[in-house]
Amino acid sequence: MTYATQKLYEEKVFKDPVHRYIHVRDRVIWDLIGTREFQRLRRIKQLGTTYLTFHGAEHSRFTHSLGVYEIIRRMVDDVFSGRPEWNNEDRLLALCAGLLHDVGHGPFSHTFEKIFNLDHEEFTRYIIEGNTEINKILKRVGEDFPEKVAAIIAKTSPNKLVTSMISSQIDADRMDYLLRDAYYTGVSYGNFDMERLLRVMRPRPDGIVIKQSGMHAVEHYLISRYQMYWQVYFHPVSRSAEAILTGILKRAKDLHKDGYQFNYVPVHFSSLFEGKIDLEEYVKLDESVLLYYFQAWQEEDDEILRDLCTRFLNRKLFKFVDFKAETDTDQIMLLSKLFEEIGLDPKYYLIRDIMSDEAYDYFRYGEEESKKPILLLLANGEIKEISRRSDLVEGITGKKLTDSKLFYPHDLIYYSQPNDVKKKIIEIIEGMAGNTK
Amino acid sequence: MTYATQKLYEEKVFKDPVHRYIHVRDRVIWDLIGTREFQRLRRIKQLGTTYLTFHGAEHSRFTHSLGVYEIIRRMVDDVFSGRPEWNNEDRLLALCAGLLHDVGHGPFSHTFEKIFNLDHEEFTRYIIEGNTEINKILKRVGEDFPEKVAAIIAKTSPNKLVTSMISSQIDADRMDYLLRDAYYTGVSYGNFDMERLLRVMRPRPDGIVIKQSGMHAVEHYLISRYQMYWQVYFHPVSRSAEAILTGILKRAKDLHKDGYQFNYVPVHFSSLFEGKIDLEEYVKLDESVLLYYFQAWQEEDDEILRDLCTRFLNRKLFKFVDFKAETDTDQIMLLSKLFEEIGLDPKYYLIRDIMSDEAYDYFRYGEEESKKPILLLLANGEIKEISRRSDLVEGITGKKLTDSKLFYPHDLIYYSQPNDVKKKIIEIIEGMAGNTK
Amino acid sequence: MTYATQKLYEEKVFKDPVHRYIHVRDRVIWDLIGTREFQRLRRIKQLGTTYLTFHGAEHSRFTHSLGVYEIIRRMVDDVFSGRPEWNNEDRLLALCAGLLHDVGHGPFSHTFEKIFNLDHEEFTRYIIEGNTEINKILKRVGEDFPEKVAAIIAKTSPNKLVTSMISSQIDADRMDYLLRDAYYTGVSYGNFDMERLLRVMRPRPDGIVIKQSGMHAVEHYLISRYQMYWQVYFHPVSRSAEAILTGILKRAKDLHKDGYQFNYVPVHFSSLFEGKIDLEEYVKLDESVLLYYFQAWQEEDDEILRDLCTRFLNRKLFKFVDFKAETDTDQIMLLSKLFEEIGLDPKYYLIRDIMSDEAYDYFRYGEEESKKPILLLLANGEIKEISRRSDLVEGITGKKLTDSKLFYPHDLIYYSQPNDVKKKIIEIIEGMAGNTK
Amino acid sequence: MTYATQKLYEEKVFKDPVHRYIHVRDRVIWDLIGTREFQRLRRIKQLGTTYLTFHGAEHSRFTHSLGVYEIIRRMVDDVFSGRPEWNNEDRLLALCAGLLHDVGHGPFSHTFEKIFNLDHEEFTRYIIEGNTEINKILKRVGEDFPEKVAAIIAKTSPNKLVTSMISSQIDADRMDYLLRDAYYTGVSYGNFDMERLLRVMRPRPDGIVIKQSGMHAVEHYLISRYQMYWQVYFHPVSRSAEAILTGILKRAKDLHKDGYQFNYVPVHFSSLFEGKIDLEEYVKLDESVLLYYFQAWQEEDDEILRDLCTRFLNRKLFKFVDFKAETDTDQIMLLSKLFEEIGLDPKYYLIRDIMSDEAYDYFRYGEEESKKPILLLLANGEIKEISRRSDLVEGITGKKLTDSKLFYPHDLIYYSQPNDVKKKIIEIIEGMAGNTK
Repeated sequence: MTYATQKLYEEKVFKDPVHRYIHVRDRVIWDLIGTREFQRLRRIKQLGTTYLTFHGAEHSRFTHSLGVYEIIRRMVDDVFSGRPEWNNEDRLLALCAGLLHDVGHGPFSHTFEKIFNLDHEEFTRYIIEGNTEINKILKRVGEDFPEKVAAIIAKTSPNKLVTSMISSQIDADRMDYLLRDAYYTGVSYGNFDMERLLRVMRPRPDGIVIKQSGMHAVEHYLISRYQMYWQVYFHPVSRSAEAILTGILKRAKDLHKDGYQFNYVPVHFSSLFEGKIDLEEYVKLDESVLLYYFQAWQEEDDEILRDLCTRFLNRKLFKFVDFKAETDTDQIMLLSKLFEEIGLDPKYYLIRDIMSDEAYDYFRYGEEESKKPILLLLANGEIKEISRRSDLVEGITGKKLTDSKLFYPHDLIYYSQPNDVKKKIIEIIEGMAGNTK
Repeated sequence: MTYATQKLYEEKVFKDPVHRYIHVRDRVIWDLIGTREFQRLRRIKQLGTTYLTFHGAEHSRFTHSLGVYEIIRRMVDDVFSGRPEWNNEDRLLALCAGLLHDVGHGPFSHTFEKIFNLDHEEFTRYIIEGNTEINKILKRVGEDFPEKVAAIIAKTSPNKLVTSMISSQIDADRMDYLLRDAYYTGVSYGNFDMERLLRVMRPRPDGIVIKQSGMHAVEHYLISRYQMYWQVYFHPVSRSAEAILTGILKRAKDLHKDGYQFNYVPVHFSSLFEGKIDLEEYVKLDESVLLYYFQAWQEEDDEILRDLCTRFLNRKLFKFVDFKAETDTDQIMLLSKLFEEIGLDPKYYLIRDIMSDEAYDYFRYGEEESKKPILLLLANGEIKEISRRSDLVEGITGKKLTDSKLFYPHDLIYYSQPNDVKKKIIEIIEGMAGNTK
Repeated sequence: MTYATQKLYEEKVFKDPVHRYIHVRDRVIWDLIGTREFQRLRRIKQLGTTYLTFHGAEHSRFTHSLGVYEIIRRMVDDVFSGRPEWNNEDRLLALCAGLLHDVGHGPFSHTFEKIFNLDHEEFTRYIIEGNTEINKILKRVGEDFPEKVAAIIAKTSPNKLVTSMISSQIDADRMDYLLRDAYYTGVSYGNFDMERLLRVMRPRPDGIVIKQSGMHAVEHYLISRYQMYWQVYFHPVSRSAEAILTGILKRAKDLHKDGYQFNYVPVHFSSLFEGKIDLEEYVKLDESVLLYYFQAWQEEDDEILRDLCTRFLNRKLFKFVDFKAETDTDQIMLLSKLFEEIGLDPKYYLIRDIMSDEAYDYFRYGEEESKKPILLLLANGEIKEISRRSDLVEGITGKKLTDSKLFYPHDLIYYSQPNDVKKKIIEIIEGMAGNTK
Repeated sequence: MTYATQKLYEEKVFKDPVHRYIHVRDRVIWDLIGTREFQRLRRIKQLGTTYLTFHGAEHSRFTHSLGVYEIIRRMVDDVFSGRPEWNNEDRLLALCAGLLHDVGHGPFSHTFEKIFNLDHEEFTRYIIEGNTEINKILKRVGEDFPEKVAAIIAKTSPNKLVTSMISSQIDADRMDYLLRDAYYTGVSYGNFDMERLLRVMRPRPDGIVIKQSGMHAVEHYLISRYQMYWQVYFHPVSRSAEAILTGILKRAKDLHKDGYQFNYVPVHFSSLFEGKIDLEEYVKLDESVLLYYFQAWQEEDDEILRDLCTRFLNRKLFKFVDFKAETDTDQIMLLSKLFEEIGLDPKYYLIRDIMSDEAYDYFRYGEEESKKPILLLLANGEIKEISRRSDLVEGITGKKLTDSKLFYPHDLIYYSQPNDVKKKIIEIIEGMAGNTK
């Protein structure tokens, strides 16, 4: 028996609160889970700063990655297996790509990438193709297997079907995170009927299609996604924490550039600050390392760094108002100036954040893979894009969810000694609040 | 209105997956939650190393503390309120004690305390009575209020009723952790009917009693506890991780004592290593700080420290066999010698661990508060200890659960070059495994 | 203490799978539940023939009525109580109206009313105002109390607020039936967050409004309703059973009119068949009485009655095709003639059924109470109709769900000896199936 | 392909709230479900009179039978399939026996059998082997197949393994009813981890054994059973309703014997009253037929029959006290005489009811199949009876649950004109209540 087809002597089972059990029978999967690069995901939270809004959401990318693997496993072993459109030789490819799809994420990924101009998808590729424990295992399957897995995740693979299982508008990644994030936050909106969805999926060369009888399950799933965006993913309190996190990293980088002498030298960041990072260094970065520095930097001399770190650790977040990109630009410029006048650097203390997403869309010029339409397989064999059959989906198709918020340290303005500038600031902010409600 | 009775303008609500919502209306509670000492609990896991066995169990002591508060709030506001036996002036005392009962826990508490000879209950008292944000808030309620709260938690208060709400065999602490640990691990055994239990609780001067009609709910709760011990709290894989953790801290302490030059100097531990720690230093310690050091120490020169840190982070745990304290002592002594012969220091690589607990007990000489019997309030007003009415409880009363395991690095013995000593070691270990099954 | 304010010595609690517990403290409510007219609801299924599609849906109107009462109780006692807009004198009125809102339902209500030209709302009024056990209890509260309760249910009361609690687009009736029907069918779509909805409801003189922060909970609720219509309430298999039920009752009535001598004389129906029924007779009718007759009539001489009863009891239902009212009328006329040619009376064997509903609508000329818009209470105190704030609701507002099906006995046409007429019938039916898919 | 191995063109799926879905692929199973004898189970409640205590428990034996089938299906297809100890030729036998194991139940089975001296197990055999639709289908599988199925259900089959799947202390029947009754009553105690139990079952020639790693799941299951007995199955309110039901049937039988002229002649009971019933008549009896008569008999001339029927339909039940068989016999004899003195026939109005059961027992002289011990399969291949490994099980093994209650019409004694006899009766009853609490 080759390594690729080797089975464990006894199936291993992980207890999982979302899928009840995660089943591993393949030796390759078991070995991948045991690598240091994969275990590192235990130290990176799935939802970044969201635990500061929903205290239950402390789950890691490790749990999510196992969950995606399990959904893929159920697709291939329980639903696709035996169907002529499914090539069982793609099984291990799909399982590995599902398990590893997020392996390149950094700590507080979203913010981290923005500040250091990184791309977690690139690091996923490096980890799969570079000199890592994961790479060694994948290579035992086949010399070009790492590249194949990486291509699926990068959506550059010719294998459209396996790609769509992991990246499309109804893929294992989204299914797991909606269910999991709903479970850990305690928000009920994310609960759709995954069992049903799996049962109605059918493999086609270009991707998964959904049997017509499952249309309502897809509706439910899309609405769940829509609601989770508004309730959880766009939640302004988590974004406030992100604004502060952004400030910390920005400030540390700026201080480094200016030659500031740290009491706690950020050795783990030194090459990052220089704009170059090697894989080995990257893999050592996780959220405990960041939190360690934030803890230590509460004792730095630099007042801004100190303040922001304390805010983040002790959850003294910024407050926020909605703003309108079209009409409020001047006001924000003015605020920026007034902030400077009272000694608050707007670069760190006045943060604009615009979130946007679409619940579903079926078409776009220059569409990426992830915007592939959801297709229904009708009883007569025909295939139709879902919004042409479902009023509910039609109602949300292409509707862009956008939310623009301005974050600022309410306490420093409202609670401290008032003066004319502060009064002006307050007036502007309350004006924006009044307009937009 | 005094600070003690001040209400928030609008009730604050935390979404909680276990209790659905956690409701805060009291200004004092809101302020306590916002302190740095309480927010620190977000960085300490409720179940220590258990997430290495049950990957979902990544929840923090922060979530548990909120949960205990909420259960106390429901007791006092929904069940006790208005009953003649309940003095509503104890309300805030009970709420604060519930919220703060775990505030002194250190990172990986169990292990940490053992190695550094600390006691989290002592630190809870320091944090409540010392120079902290929490103390300032409690003092605003009343000059002696911090001491009162601390006495409840320390079980030295004359107020037996409030004490029993937080520390007894059927208290808010246990109720929350059983439900919460069951939820996050995904193990179903911990689910008892808390709603029902709350409804049948009645306040008495000496503690809570349970209406007879709730006897079956108590049975269910006790059985849940019994099962959670075997399924989760005694799980050998988590204890293996603890054995390694113990080794790391022990080794670092020993190295420090021996004057070893660390590449990554454990500044956060310096006074701990000296056997003296002040409150300010303690409060800075959390699990991200420990994990940071473990990360860094993978690059130390000391081979043992390096190996153990790598094992912990990458989950290369020890394996285990059951042993019998009475009969296997000689064998273990012999193993110890053989380990030394093959260059494995048994101090770090051969770890005995004995866990024991009782599901329920109604009496003990020198009993602590936490062993107070569970009392039923019969329809005729009489009070009876529960095991005299319930066959099920009688069946488990006083039954000590004990589990003795010996942990060792299976990989270093089985997978490396065999020799006579190793063969002997294997023979002894397999003998023990054979005997005890 | 008056009867109206009398409390039970100890609160009574009903275990309920949907709301966990139903709490009764008011003597009036307890007495109403004990009446024969209310107990009769145990023998009338909440979802009529739906149990023939979803086997779990065997729950009665009794359980639903208790559920509506409990939701009203939570509104008044947990949410409205103490608010200036809420007049606590309306409490008992709301509770009684909630409990009794369905008390006039007959067996297999929908079909029954159609055939005998009855109206369950009228019977609800008769039962509340007539010579019944319920009336006697309500009269003890106040001479005009029965009329007040009846007026709320009939939506003729000047008390708009209490009316809207029971009949509006977001009322206790709908909330209970969506959750309950979802629970008993096992369909997950009906699960919205009722706790959240209750918490954001605010009483206003004209009806309930919803705090803006609860908008997403309303969206979830409306979508649940939309999905339950398609998945459960419009399910063609239940409608097929209803088509047969309709046939049975029609046939029995026709036979009676024609002077047919029944072997099992339908004494319970005699006045119904004459088009006049008195209250006492009506109250004796329940689903076990109907099922008894269907059982007995399997041995009648009349072949149609016999066949239809056997079909209903043994679930040998009709099959169906979609039809389009605009284009298929001629085809159906033709089918009707062809059915006659092969000896199938189309009156009983070729049944058109058109279902339609709206998920939500905010306005209509001549709107009834039940079409009152759902209103959001914005942070600034303004009130806005929900579809102006929610894209999701806007997407479904006013969208009429319509489903037209033609039912026929597939077995009698396809499985028996074929002939030219049958072939023609099959051709037409398959043509319709082809067109509409 | 033979009929026995014929598969449906597309798998049929029933939505089930307990098992999510029930899957049918075998043509034989599909055909059996469609028979009139099986559909009749929709009109027989799973828990008899329990819906008068737990209003949600209105589910039928139809749903339970499908559930048992599904559990068997999962055993054979997901767990046993492919194991050398499992003979796949027994698959259909096991599925059919699971589906049909309760098919002989009469209306309100327990009471009904007692009064008419019937045995539902005997009727199950008649229905399977007699001239029925079910028999015809089973015969198409094999001439002796009906007998084989009947033998499994009757526990007379040489096939111990299949027998144990349906009748043992850990069988599909019990697993389904515990989960289902918990779901429909809303009582949480019945929830054990069936998924886990299924995964650890292993087929052996003499019956199922449980892998040692599943011991705690078995404990949980046994405790669930223990608790469901006390909370639901022994509930005195349901037994009060049964006492009345018993009275009705007894009275009707006695009246018939005495030549009483019924206004509503119980034609369906005529041969039953004579002590002889044929299969065809039996199959027509269901709970709607009984309820029809109870409805009608509210207008009989006989006062006792009238009163009892009204009590049953309108839930005016008897009250109860505990009694001790050893000490209270004389008291009950005396009560009996006093009842007669005030004109209450003790035969119908003073009812002793003793319930008893064992949570688990491992051995008994003359043990039936259903007392087969639960066996653990140890890691070393040895097999051990469970109570030797589990303290928890040991604690309840062989413990007989017994509950003796005396039922009487409290209203007729306490609320009507008092006299000396009534006072004496009250004194005796309250004495018994005092003693036993």
